[in-house]
Amino acid sequence: MINADGCFEHMVDCLNRLPGIGIRTAERMAYRLLAQSDTLMRDLREALDRAAAGLRCCEQCGAVTTPDQNPCRLCVSPERDDHILCVVESPEDILVLERCGSFRGRYHALLGKLSAHQGDGPADLRLDRLMRRLEHEPVAEVVLALNTDVESDATAALIAERLRPFKKMKVTRLAHGLPAGSGLVYSDPVTLGRAMAGRQSVD
Amino acid sequence: MINADGCFEHMVDCLNRLPGIGIRTAERMAYRLLAQSDTLMRDLREALDRAAAGLRCCEQCGAVTTPDQNPCRLCVSPERDDHILCVVESPEDILVLERCGSFRGRYHALLGKLSAHQGDGPADLRLDRLMRRLEHEPVAEVVLALNTDVESDATAALIAERLRPFKKMKVTRLAHGLPAGSGLVYSDPVTLGRAMAGRQSVD
Repeated sequence: MINADGCFEHMVDCLNRLPGIGIRTAERMAYRLLAQSDTLMRDLREALDRAAAGLRCCEQCGAVTTPDQNPCRLCVSPERDDHILCVVESPEDILVLERCGSFRGRYHALLGKLSAHQGDGPADLRLDRLMRRLEHEPVAEVVLALNTDVESDATAALIAERLRPFKKMKVTRLAHGLPAGSGLVYSDPVTLGRAMAGRQSVD
Repeated sequence: MINADGCFEHMVDCLNRLPGIGIRTAERMAYRLLAQSDTLMRDLREALDRAAAGLRCCEQCGAVTTPDQNPCRLCVSPERDDHILCVVESPEDILVLERCGSFRGRYHALLGKLSAHQGDGPADLRLDRLMRRLEHEPVAEVVLALNTDVESDATAALIAERLRPFKKMKVTRLAHGLPAGSGLVYSDPVTLGRAMAGRQSVD
């Protein structure tokens, strides 16, 4: 009943290659796309056509940019400090850090993290690109600004390991501890344990 | 940094409309598509173009068919019994039932089920189409051939409710009980309970 050219299976295969999408979900997506060919299918195809034409991943940092601004604005800005590179998981994290305004270096988005659950390994991160950047850019410090869940911790450990050959480079991570505007009774044991382990002298 | 036309957001919105895809997953999919614009993005766009051109949901039963065979082969076959209609969740279920060979009526695929988890309600099933078919086709019996999980049971209950106005129509469901080639000690309590409740006289 499914047509002989295998184009249903091909669509399922492609959807299945998206991050976090198993074969069953890919099939449900494909059936839904066909069932809504005049709305969802049409809209998604248009959206992908527009995105393919008008958007790029910055070849340097991985942020979303346009074809005529690649590397992106932040990567080419002469006002940023070339000596400090902040590694984040997602381009969205760059926006968050820019909004906070306490970082003036360059960025590098991994576009993912190690995740057994999502089936993402080292090859799914932009690690090779990071290594090439470190060889060619005058980076003196890499700040690992990853999230604080188990998978992100594993990703940070992997990157720290890969950075070991760069003897002179400082590798730091964001401080772990109590969030602002909260109290000890509201903290989970892991956060409190990290805050205690990372306690600092009061000058 | 994300471009002003909002075409990244538009892509995320469209992906977010696919079944089972939350906003975070849609964002990860969008970033991955941009990061792999020469492979994954290109392949997916080609696959959707081919599917949009070469595949249709059968307007009658919901199975996958081609534009020049719509309604599909099973819906127009003169060898099938018009008086009995089998309601399934997915077009795949039609293939499974055809392989087993013990049904010679027509089919109707819902293309989903009620699912709080996936955010699918009655409007996401092909229920209106089912109602229209029952008004125009000489159906004497509807067989609910849904799966046996909680969500499918809820879906079956909803359909049974909607079918109540068709006074003369028989509504049946597949038998629940022990699977073939198994033993009592391998059965879960729910299956065994249903097998006991549905026990039949031995003639």
